Amino acid sequence: MKIESVDFFYLSMPEVTTAADGSQDALVVRVAAGGLIGWGECEASPLVSIAAFVAPMSHGACRPVSASVLGRRLEGPDDIRAMAADVAYNSMDLLQAAHTWSGVEMALWDLLGKARGEPAWRLLGYDRAFPKVPYASVLFGATAQETLERARAIRAAGFRAAKFGWAPFGASLSGDIDQLDAAREGLGPDGILLIDAGQIFGEDVEAAAARLPAMERNRVTWFEEPFAGEALEAYGALARRSGAVAIAGGEAAHNRFMARHLIDIGGVGYIQIDCGRIGGLGPAREVALHAAAKGVTYVNHTFTSNLALSASLQPYAGLEAHRICEYPTGLQPLARDLTVERILPDGEGLIHVPDAPGLGIEVSAAALETYRVPVEIRVRGKTLFSA
Amino acid sequence: MKIESVDFFYLSMPEVTTAADGSQDALVVRVAAGGLIGWGECEASPLVSIAAFVAPMSHGACRPVSASVLGRRLEGPDDIRAMAADVAYNSMDLLQAAHTWSGVEMALWDLLGKARGEPAWRLLGYDRAFPKVPYASVLFGATAQETLERARAIRAAGFRAAKFGWAPFGASLSGDIDQLDAAREGLGPDGILLIDAGQIFGEDVEAAAARLPAMERNRVTWFEEPFAGEALEAYGALARRSGAVAIAGGEAAHNRFMARHLIDIGGVGYIQIDCGRIGGLGPAREVALHAAAKGVTYVNHTFTSNLALSASLQPYAGLEAHRICEYPTGLQPLARDLTVERILPDGEGLIHVPDAPGLGIEVSAAALETYRVPVEIRVRGKTLFSA
Repeated sequence: MKIESVDFFYLSMPEVTTAADGSQDALVVRVAAGGLIGWGECEASPLVSIAAFVAPMSHGACRPVSASVLGRRLEGPDDIRAMAADVAYNSMDLLQAAHTWSGVEMALWDLLGKARGEPAWRLLGYDRAFPKVPYASVLFGATAQETLERARAIRAAGFRAAKFGWAPFGASLSGDIDQLDAAREGLGPDGILLIDAGQIFGEDVEAAAARLPAMERNRVTWFEEPFAGEALEAYGALARRSGAVAIAGGEAAHNRFMARHLIDIGGVGYIQIDCGRIGGLGPAREVALHAAAKGVTYVNHTFTSNLALSASLQPYAGLEAHRICEYPTGLQPLARDLTVERILPDGEGLIHVPDAPGLGIEVSAAALETYRVPVEIRVRGKTLFSA
Repeated sequence: MKIESVDFFYLSMPEVTTAADGSQDALVVRVAAGGLIGWGECEASPLVSIAAFVAPMSHGACRPVSASVLGRRLEGPDDIRAMAADVAYNSMDLLQAAHTWSGVEMALWDLLGKARGEPAWRLLGYDRAFPKVPYASVLFGATAQETLERARAIRAAGFRAAKFGWAPFGASLSGDIDQLDAAREGLGPDGILLIDAGQIFGEDVEAAAARLPAMERNRVTWFEEPFAGEALEAYGALARRSGAVAIAGGEAAHNRFMARHLIDIGGVGYIQIDCGRIGGLGPAREVALHAAAKGVTYVNHTFTSNLALSASLQPYAGLEAHRICEYPTGLQPLARDLTVERILPDGEGLIHVPDAPGLGIEVSAAALETYRVPVEIRVRGKTLFSA
C-alpha cells in the first residue's frame, strides 16, 4: 500500500473553558491507503498540529510532518518505524511535530490492522490482551464537599479506582488535606485513590512533600505530576522520600527519551503515556517494555475520546501485571459522540481492549460534521489547508 | 508599561532548500509597550510558531501563548519571568509554545532595555560584557576537497576557529575521516576545529565513538550533537570515553531542564543554547550560570540573523572564561539584510556584544517588506492572523 492522503478534522465544543478538561476539542486524523481508512487523534491544540503538517519547510532539519509521510509505503510495522525515524530527523527543529505525528502514527496502525485483520496490539507483538481495571478520571471539586459527592458518585457507578486532579489542589496545604480526606471518604475504604497535581509545584520538592503525610494517611496509591514534566531531579528527590505513596508522571513525554528518564532518573513508580503526544503506539510500547523491565507500572494517559482511549490501551494490552487504566468519565458530548463504538466496563467493572482489527473504533461521520471547526491556512496566496 | 501588541513577520528567501541552513527563513517578533518597540526572533518554522500564538484554547493547560502576554505589565525583569512561568503553565500541553515564546521573550528584554537605556546583558545582571572569539560556522563541503577549500577561506578571512557540520558527515567512516583531515589541513595547525554531527548517530554510541580517533588526531575541540537532543544516556556514554575531545550539545533544548540534564547527566563539556528555542534570554542565563558552576563552557547557538546573534550573546556576555561564540557566516541575503546594525569582528578578530540599549539591533523596515511571506489563518470564519 501507498499512503495516499492524510486529512485532519478540527472538532470543538461551541465553547471551550479554562477547565483542565481535554475533551473540549479534538484533532482527528484520517489516513487513506490501499482502499482502506485508518483513524487517529492528536493531543492537543488542533490548529498548531495542523500547521505542523502543512507548514513550508524552513530548512532540511525543519520540514513539515507531511514530508515524511505522504506517498510512503505501508506494508508492515517496520514501515511505520521508518517514518517515525524520518519525522524525528527531518522535523528535528519543528517542536510541534511529535504531537502531529502521534495522531498520524495511530491511524497507520489502525489502517495496517484493518489490512491484516488483526488488532493493533497483536501487530505490536502481543499474543493476547488482558482486561484492565479502569479508574474514573475526574477533576477535584471546587470545594471538598463537591469532591466528596463526586467520589461517592464514582463509587456508586461501580468503579474500584478513581483519580482526582488539578485545581484547586496545590492552592493551600489545609485545603489540599480537606480534599484528600473528602476523596477517600467518598470513595470508601477499599477504593484505589489516585491524585493528580497537574504540575502545580513546578520544581518545589518541599511544597509537594508537605502533602505526603495526608496522602499516606488516606492511602493514596500515586501522586501524579507534582512537578513540571521534565523536572527529573525534583521527581527523583520526592520519590526518595514518598514512602508508600508512589510518584507518577509521563503524560508530557513527547519522545521515548523523556519517559525513560522519568523511570531511570525520576524514580516514578507509574509511567503514564499519552499516545497522542509521545509519537503514537510504537514508542509507547517501547516505554511499556522498558517500564516492565525496571519494575515500574505502565499506565495509559488519555482524557479525550474512546478512539484515543483504544490507542492508549494497545501499547500495554499484553502486559498482564499492568492492570490499571485511565478511563475518562464526564466527557464532553463531542468526545462521546465522536466514536461509533464505545469501550464500556463489563459486569465486573473491567475494561477490554478492542479485539477488532486496528484500533477497533470507527469515527462517526455525523460527529465530524456536527463539531467541525472550519479552518483555512493560506501562505503566499496558496491554500495549504482548508476544511 | 503595558504590552499593547505582539506582531509576527514571516520572512523567507524565495526558495528554501533542504540544506541545513537556518537562515533561509525567519520569524521576527515586534512587541509594543509604552510607546517603545522591542524586536525578537523565533527559531524555527514560522507558520507553526505563529499558530501557537493565535490558536484557540483547547483547555486550561493548553492556551495560546498570547493568553500569557497580551495586556501584561512590563516594568522589570521579574515581569518577564512571571510571563515565562505563565506560558509554561498555561501552555503546558502546547508543544510549540516554547519556540513562540522565545522570540517574544527576547523582544521584551529589548524593549525593557530601551526603556531603561541599558543593554540587555546588564538587565540580566552582568556588570560588563567581555569580547568573544567567533568561530565561523559552515556546513561540510559535499567532498573533502570542498571542505578543504572552505577551511582555507575561513582561515584567510582571519577566523581563529571554525565549525563544520551536517551531511555528508556520518555517511561513512572513511568519508568522515577524509573530511576531518581536510578541515584540519585547511584551517592550519593552530585553528580551533569544531565538528557538528547534526544528530546523525541517533543513539548509536559505537558509531559515534568510531570517529573519535580521527578527531583526536586532528585535535578537534568538540564533537557536537552526535545524538538525538534528549539521548542523555548516549551522551554520557560517549563523554566517558571521548578523551581530549569534548562533547557538545544543547541547541535542541526548549526548556532549562533539558540543558541542565545534558550538563549533569549527559556529561557535555560545552552547552550550546539557542535563545530562539529555550524560552529566550532568561532561561539561557540560568543555564549559563549552572554551566559555570559545573565547570562546563557555555556557548551560544545561532544560525540566523544578527538580531538572533545579539540575543544569543547576552546570556553569557559577562562570563569572561566562556570565550568562544558561534558566528554564522555564509548567511542568506534575508538574514544579512534583516538588521540595520551588524556585529562584525574587530581588528583582532573578536566579537563585541552590543552595548546599545536592549539587544542593540534594529530591524530593517525594507527587509520586512522585501522578504515578507503573506500568511492568513482563519478559524470559524474569523481571521486569527493576517500579514
